[in-house]
Amino acid sequence: MTAPLFKKITFIGLGLIGSSLSRSIVKHGLAERLAVYDHSEAAQETIKELGLVDEICGTMEDAVRDADLVIICTPLSAYKDVAAGIAPHLKEGAIISDVGSVKATIFKDVAPLLSNHVHLVPGHPIAGTEHSGPENGFAALFEGRWSILTPAPQTDKDALAKITALWEGVGAMVELMEASHHDKVLAITSHLPHMIAYTIVDTATDLERNLKKEVIKFSASGFRDFTRIAASNPIMWRDICLANKEAILEMLGRFDEDLTSLRRALRRDDGDLLMDTFTRTREIRRKVIEAKQDAPPEKPES
Amino acid sequence: MTAPLFKKITFIGLGLIGSSLSRSIVKHGLAERLAVYDHSEAAQETIKELGLVDEICGTMEDAVRDADLVIICTPLSAYKDVAAGIAPHLKEGAIISDVGSVKATIFKDVAPLLSNHVHLVPGHPIAGTEHSGPENGFAALFEGRWSILTPAPQTDKDALAKITALWEGVGAMVELMEASHHDKVLAITSHLPHMIAYTIVDTATDLERNLKKEVIKFSASGFRDFTRIAASNPIMWRDICLANKEAILEMLGRFDEDLTSLRRALRRDDGDLLMDTFTRTREIRRKVIEAKQDAPPEKPES
Repeated sequence: MTAPLFKKITFIGLGLIGSSLSRSIVKHGLAERLAVYDHSEAAQETIKELGLVDEICGTMEDAVRDADLVIICTPLSAYKDVAAGIAPHLKEGAIISDVGSVKATIFKDVAPLLSNHVHLVPGHPIAGTEHSGPENGFAALFEGRWSILTPAPQTDKDALAKITALWEGVGAMVELMEASHHDKVLAITSHLPHMIAYTIVDTATDLERNLKKEVIKFSASGFRDFTRIAASNPIMWRDICLANKEAILEMLGRFDEDLTSLRRALRRDDGDLLMDTFTRTREIRRKVIEAKQDAPPEKPES
Repeated sequence: MTAPLFKKITFIGLGLIGSSLSRSIVKHGLAERLAVYDHSEAAQETIKELGLVDEICGTMEDAVRDADLVIICTPLSAYKDVAAGIAPHLKEGAIISDVGSVKATIFKDVAPLLSNHVHLVPGHPIAGTEHSGPENGFAALFEGRWSILTPAPQTDKDALAKITALWEGVGAMVELMEASHHDKVLAITSHLPHMIAYTIVDTATDLERNLKKEVIKFSASGFRDFTRIAASNPIMWRDICLANKEAILEMLGRFDEDLTSLRRALRRDDGDLLMDTFTRTREIRRKVIEAKQDAPPEKPES
């Protein structure tokens, strides 16, 4: 057994992603000690019951003391308060990372408050389920999945190497990307699909009562997949939308044009245009399967 | 073992649904003999190789001769030709059914050509995968799934009872519904979700090449589920859209209003409206799970 990568890792917030990461770090022996600060009392109870970490702290100050690595796993809207709460108490040489779905936020809300003696290596694992909370995390969540790191150009190489080793240690593949490019890619692969799924499920909730009952009963015909996506954590998704507003609005604009064109074709009985569109999209699916991104996330071992 | 429900069942067309049904009929001993007419030579080859039926016929006339039950399993655009091809050759008392996703079509394109001596019992199993063709069918496809029957009010009760027994025999649950109501329900549960999924995947195919590569690479973040839906058979979906045009356009109109409202909220940084929408939709997911419609279709036994 090699030495652990880190002596002490501190999580700020421990929901689905944070608790999956903590479980996997424990499983693979990547840290000597784990500490957590989570402002939710319910989460604290669950973390304690499940014995997920060594130390549950009452303040952020206590939690980050002596930490070699601090990982922010809160919704994006909490980043400002987290930065204010941890920055003065970080030890020299500490690494700060996160798992947020929009990378602009950590540069805007956290980076300016950090001293030059700590290292910022933002991250975003492309993994998750529609469930939330520490009770729903599982150690295998990141296996075979991508984790995107978006360091600034001047980032300390050793700090970057250690965060890379951490993600590889939990089974993920690491990709480096510029933060603003990350936010554009995720706007189309993740944020737009979630907005669309939320909308279509909301359209269904607005139907007259009888029809709505049948929508649920016969959801297996396609609707069901949208309800799964639209069951994701509302706070997390509100924050993502607001934080990546410009890129999402740009993608929504493109989508709206394409939908209008398809709708016009349908109104004019233009079967050829429908056929062309429906054929073109199969190609993308083929590539997703080739890229081995087609498997659903693995279920928690119980 | 009880006697089979039917002496001879004939399939017109044998793709994913037809071949799944034929496999399940064989498995459960629901017919003495199965015949098929499929105009595709490739399909004929596959059906022969897999030994799915007793008799592969060269014409519709041959296939339906002496059949007690004829099940149309072609795309909707073929219904008119199928009706013309089979109607003069049906035996007295034969039952005609189908598995089409829009029920207006069989009443419009098939019913007028049938004599009064045969019985029409239209059907639509709410089951399927994104794959097509007889090689992708599997016997368990209908187990625990709904099959909707949309008989006219004057339909022969015995014929209806036999088709009900057939679907229950392959493990499905049967629901009776008025055809036009069926088409309205499916417009929101199935047809609109498919149109939306096709559109969003098409929006992604239109991105600059580099971004497109990354969309595929990081599709696990939500986009992947849409690519699965958008990989469905293009001919089948072109036909469904054209056949259920009015109901789909109505649902597209509602969806468009809701999306515009969400987009406006995002542009105005209205986090409360986003939060309300994203919270409301979770309730529908809970009901889908309660209704036991949340499991993905089972994979073929191999």
